[in-house]
Amino acid sequence: MATGTLPKNSAGIENVRALAFDVFGTVVDWRATIISEGVALSESVDWGSLANDWMEGYRAQVERVRKGERLWAVLDVFLKEVFGSLVTKYHLDTIPPSQLSVFAGVWHRLKPWPDVLPGLARLRRKFVIGTLSNGNMILLVDMERHSDLRWDCVLSAELPTRYKPDKEAYQIAVDYLGPAPHQVMYVAAHQWDLTAGHKTVGMRTAYIPRPFELGAPPSSDAPDPSYDINAKDFEDLASQLGC
Amino acid sequence: MATGTLPKNSAGIENVRALAFDVFGTVVDWRATIISEGVALSESVDWGSLANDWMEGYRAQVERVRKGERLWAVLDVFLKEVFGSLVTKYHLDTIPPSQLSVFAGVWHRLKPWPDVLPGLARLRRKFVIGTLSNGNMILLVDMERHSDLRWDCVLSAELPTRYKPDKEAYQIAVDYLGPAPHQVMYVAAHQWDLTAGHKTVGMRTAYIPRPFELGAPPSSDAPDPSYDINAKDFEDLASQLGC
Repeated sequence: MATGTLPKNSAGIENVRALAFDVFGTVVDWRATIISEGVALSESVDWGSLANDWMEGYRAQVERVRKGERLWAVLDVFLKEVFGSLVTKYHLDTIPPSQLSVFAGVWHRLKPWPDVLPGLARLRRKFVIGTLSNGNMILLVDMERHSDLRWDCVLSAELPTRYKPDKEAYQIAVDYLGPAPHQVMYVAAHQWDLTAGHKTVGMRTAYIPRPFELGAPPSSDAPDPSYDINAKDFEDLASQLGC
Repeated sequence: MATGTLPKNSAGIENVRALAFDVFGTVVDWRATIISEGVALSESVDWGSLANDWMEGYRAQVERVRKGERLWAVLDVFLKEVFGSLVTKYHLDTIPPSQLSVFAGVWHRLKPWPDVLPGLARLRRKFVIGTLSNGNMILLVDMERHSDLRWDCVLSAELPTRYKPDKEAYQIAVDYLGPAPHQVMYVAAHQWDLTAGHKTVGMRTAYIPRPFELGAPPSSDAPDPSYDINAKDFEDLASQLGC
């Protein structure tokens, strides 16, 4: 994306009352969780590569839905489909089926980055906090229960049945938690996502770098002065927002 | 409603994985909260009568929406409209405007019945727990934050923009938390609501009596063997569900 292009709203960030969070990559380290659960099953699989393939595979299906090439389905459907192809590619059929079946649900058990729980605890004292994710409702609810995330509400692309970066997927955060766009700040580790949230519905933006989300080499996403806040992590975000 | 008329599904309640809760009356004692905040403002107002009028007033608007006589609007809109008429009827204009303005938002601060927090803590260990309310999202979120309710997710009539007892208002609990109807149990203090949740989308049913929700005389709602569970309160519900 072009950098330095986000117009500022007239109202300052002192009007923000709710924070909406991207989840995969921003809140949870999906790759490390998949590797961790995978290594417990077999040490002869490149779980990091498998994790990246899994993510790219579901993202491809999300894009097909967005382009009208496929009917709406929840993320769990795509994750299951892609996993079927990974079983073949990575020769996972040597793993006992009962263990493989449990592993297939690892996206419901993704663990947060180390700064997330202490940061969210501080942020929640001052702001309504909620998810804004392409994950489906029960996936996000299971993850929240598993990792003791303390969301005030779970918002998902499943509600409008439209995936980010479509406008409707962001609009729900403004409608339910605003209702003015500048009352809601979107927190994400990906420029395409933050920029879409701002440009389509006018949310405030906070960027958090997660350079090793995909392993090495580090992501090309970077802080940008056009975002309202560039924070090092969730604890730094809390400090910058006066929590 | 006719009693003893709910057909049982073939699957037993051992398949239930999520509990959806009606909120006004079932989880929170809206009338006592309104009286409590009201008495602090003035001792010369019949706050119990005002509370009942407020509830009946918003319910009338919900029914107008359901009958197609009025366009969809969130509950906060109706609560504000009705409050305007209550200011006149109960001569609240002697109360300072700043205090009256705070009081008008009392529905965002409703307090739970005494059994609710300990009961929900036990139930949440085993089940996904969420709201299923005609209240709008931010109203439910504010209430959850104010009373430390620990919902796994907040589901509201605002999501499908359809009010209970319309089918669509119940369907979201099954879609997001099931997906099979018998995997979701609806917990409510009102027969009309429980019966609609079961008949329209097939949810399991748990009845909790709140006989003095409206003050005296006690409500005519009563336990019924056709419900899957009749519990004394949330703690008893937890015991009956093995929590």
